[in-house]
Amino acid sequence: MEFVFDAWYVAGWSRNFQHELVPQTILEQNLVFFRQNDDKLVALEDRCPHRLLPLSKGNLVGDNVECGYHGMTFDGNGKCVRIPAQDNLPPSAYVDTYPVEERHGIVWVWMGIKEKADPNLIFNMDEFKDSSWHKHLGDALHIKAHYLNVAENLVDPAHVSFVHPTTLGSAASQDVPVEVSTTDDPIAAWRWIRNAPPVGFFQKFGSFSGNVDRWHYYYLHLPSTAVIDFGSAASDLQLKEDERHKGVRIFAIHFVTPVTRDYTIDHWMHMRNAAVGNDDASKQIDDLFRIAFEEDKEILEAIHKEEQRQQTRAPIRIAIDRAPLVYRKRIKELVNLGSQQR
Amino acid sequence: MEFVFDAWYVAGWSRNFQHELVPQTILEQNLVFFRQNDDKLVALEDRCPHRLLPLSKGNLVGDNVECGYHGMTFDGNGKCVRIPAQDNLPPSAYVDTYPVEERHGIVWVWMGIKEKADPNLIFNMDEFKDSSWHKHLGDALHIKAHYLNVAENLVDPAHVSFVHPTTLGSAASQDVPVEVSTTDDPIAAWRWIRNAPPVGFFQKFGSFSGNVDRWHYYYLHLPSTAVIDFGSAASDLQLKEDERHKGVRIFAIHFVTPVTRDYTIDHWMHMRNAAVGNDDASKQIDDLFRIAFEEDKEILEAIHKEEQRQQTRAPIRIAIDRAPLVYRKRIKELVNLGSQQR
Amino acid sequence: MEFVFDAWYVAGWSRNFQHELVPQTILEQNLVFFRQNDDKLVALEDRCPHRLLPLSKGNLVGDNVECGYHGMTFDGNGKCVRIPAQDNLPPSAYVDTYPVEERHGIVWVWMGIKEKADPNLIFNMDEFKDSSWHKHLGDALHIKAHYLNVAENLVDPAHVSFVHPTTLGSAASQDVPVEVSTTDDPIAAWRWIRNAPPVGFFQKFGSFSGNVDRWHYYYLHLPSTAVIDFGSAASDLQLKEDERHKGVRIFAIHFVTPVTRDYTIDHWMHMRNAAVGNDDASKQIDDLFRIAFEEDKEILEAIHKEEQRQQTRAPIRIAIDRAPLVYRKRIKELVNLGSQQR
Repeated sequence: MEFVFDAWYVAGWSRNFQHELVPQTILEQNLVFFRQNDDKLVALEDRCPHRLLPLSKGNLVGDNVECGYHGMTFDGNGKCVRIPAQDNLPPSAYVDTYPVEERHGIVWVWMGIKEKADPNLIFNMDEFKDSSWHKHLGDALHIKAHYLNVAENLVDPAHVSFVHPTTLGSAASQDVPVEVSTTDDPIAAWRWIRNAPPVGFFQKFGSFSGNVDRWHYYYLHLPSTAVIDFGSAASDLQLKEDERHKGVRIFAIHFVTPVTRDYTIDHWMHMRNAAVGNDDASKQIDDLFRIAFEEDKEILEAIHKEEQRQQTRAPIRIAIDRAPLVYRKRIKELVNLGSQQR
Repeated sequence: MEFVFDAWYVAGWSRNFQHELVPQTILEQNLVFFRQNDDKLVALEDRCPHRLLPLSKGNLVGDNVECGYHGMTFDGNGKCVRIPAQDNLPPSAYVDTYPVEERHGIVWVWMGIKEKADPNLIFNMDEFKDSSWHKHLGDALHIKAHYLNVAENLVDPAHVSFVHPTTLGSAASQDVPVEVSTTDDPIAAWRWIRNAPPVGFFQKFGSFSGNVDRWHYYYLHLPSTAVIDFGSAASDLQLKEDERHKGVRIFAIHFVTPVTRDYTIDHWMHMRNAAVGNDDASKQIDDLFRIAFEEDKEILEAIHKEEQRQQTRAPIRIAIDRAPLVYRKRIKELVNLGSQQR
Repeated sequence: MEFVFDAWYVAGWSRNFQHELVPQTILEQNLVFFRQNDDKLVALEDRCPHRLLPLSKGNLVGDNVECGYHGMTFDGNGKCVRIPAQDNLPPSAYVDTYPVEERHGIVWVWMGIKEKADPNLIFNMDEFKDSSWHKHLGDALHIKAHYLNVAENLVDPAHVSFVHPTTLGSAASQDVPVEVSTTDDPIAAWRWIRNAPPVGFFQKFGSFSGNVDRWHYYYLHLPSTAVIDFGSAASDLQLKEDERHKGVRIFAIHFVTPVTRDYTIDHWMHMRNAAVGNDDASKQIDDLFRIAFEEDKEILEAIHKEEQRQQTRAPIRIAIDRAPLVYRKRIKELVNLGSQQR
């Protein structure tokens, strides 16, 4: 099995979960989410233990889920509280539950052994609470590809010049080597493109008049959350690496959730230190990201198809692969050490 | 193999078979039906023994079927009567035939060993010939599900309250226990809901003013024909179980035909002791059934998908499962005793 | 494996290949074609050896192909000429190449071991260069069927009476025996239908007033190129077999290219000794062929589906199968003798 079970994964944005049944597949497990009347969000196994109907095909009755076939009813703890026309409630009549936490409008679900579910492990950034940063929850990109390919792409600055030539990258960056740091979590990969015209993104957003220094820092947190710190500053400022806060700086954050081994959802959001409070700027960034991420999707889905075909020789590795290779090695270790399944 | 081969199955209504080639798959066998000029309906294996083209892609020439590829021609007994440009007709040039019988406008085909095909085994009811009953052949419901789940649903009165809350059932019946009789063929399961408002169906059809006693008797005949005797009578009549003929009584009859292990056709018809000769009433019943059976279809297809997934624990059984469990046991015995395939 | 690798296959018409990347799957190999600036057409393995992205998703930069993911670049010989941000070009960084030849507007690609690629083996006809023959490249018919069934159909005159009753055949020919010659390459099968009304095709094209003698000669060249020599002459001319040039004569030529074991492309063209230079006549023939070949497609796809089902008894063989059977035997020999894969 290629999944890291003992981890928190993003199931969506808080605003999308109301007092209704919402089915979601994560790590090939079918879950049903609903918000209780006390606003607490819960997730149950989406399968009645009687005749296997997904509970999401049934009804929410108060804070309980009633199966749509014979009315067997479960509370938010997965406990069976009713079997119609029967007094006895056997102990086998239960459904599994999944720990759910909400932070800053983001819904996290723990897919591993429940005893290990520690809310302190949930991904966090100081900027989430910093009002000098504008925070914007974006959208969900559905990709027919394995999640490792999706996540690997997010610690790979080199693809930007070729996959996103009109939005996030440009020809000027093609031959700039990538620097990496692979000893810690997150794994990091970055490069600076100095003294070049601003790329499409910053042409629109930064209103620079001359050449800029542009940086891309990719941080990949295990198992599959990526923060891309990118920005630009006027080249004559000669910005140092740790002076990025002086430029126009954006964090694109990707929460990569494996659905099946052939399907992945990338929930993405962004934060910035400019145009704070400007919703129109958020919308412009959303639009640019949508174009760019569709470019990733096309590449990743084509590769996924190719990977299903019989392989005749081993793929070659090149210099820019260092961070992705370390990432895959780390995941393998996590998979071997952790729960093999739930 | 999960099919009972030595049995008569419904292929459709007589009115739908004319002097033309009609392909049908039953028990994963491909058949082609056609009505001869003498009105006799025949069924052949739908595959030319030469290059395997389905004969239904060819032409009916008189009472013979001509293959659409090279013109090899078979009569209604499956015998090859012509090979173009060749005098010799080898004995291997034949197609299998299937015994076909028509009764009361219903087409039955025997899928097992031909020698065992006994027309006396065809499902029958006295009311088919009783003019005080209005008989109406309905439609065919196509369901992407295993036939055992479809048939089991037809000896399960308990699902009605939850799957059909606005048409055939209501909340009043949720906790009424189900009685069963499992020693004979048919297996029976029933319950009475006494002194409750009429459900949607009888609101439309029975024109009751006060509360009614409502009954649902499910009779499942092996392998897969179900008769649902349901009706209502004014509660103040205090009807006994064997006095159902005094109320408004309807038989919904389902002929469940396995197509493949993933696909089932339910040909359904109905009979009633009220509004005899009233075609508009038949149409109203058809419309109500169409809504109700679509509700079943949605449930059964969702379960079928779920059953294809890896199972992590055994499903639990509850009180209302008695009749379905006996049904599955009986089918297993029939499968083991009968022809393993045709 | 059921493919003959050591052979030239048609990839399309020259006019359809420009200075752009065109993906094509042949014998389950993915290729990308492009025309260099010197007009030479080349074909590469359509898969970057780095992360497996099909190169056809990338860009043509001069005469080189740049991968759309990280910009790895290959020349027309499959040699890697650039890895962005890296000086070292490892020897494993290459893609396979496929020999390509163009003849008379037809693009041929060699799918076997490169050393065996001999352009003298490319299918040729004297009439290709004969200005008294009108040559017309037609279209490509996509068929969801195994190529052996498609090719076999092209050495089978007997199917014409039944599959193409209104275009190429007629009832008059149903019982005319087929003559065959199976000792050489091509395998040949033919028959004459003497003194019958002209079929649809020649009604439109030949403007005959009385009965005609019609011939169909099917020549199947290994592995899968078919020439169908068919024509008509007024019956009172009493044409001998070798006097076909005196009648209205058409060659329909089919280049059958296996895509996968479930998918085949038939590139077809035609030549004629009448209405030379008349483009309207070419269009009329195209239209007639399109109708006729759709009829073949329907039959072949239905057979392909049937062949995927479990077989319960061996298909029977009849007199008209002689040429197809020899063809299959020859292919089997070629497959066993040749490269098992590329």
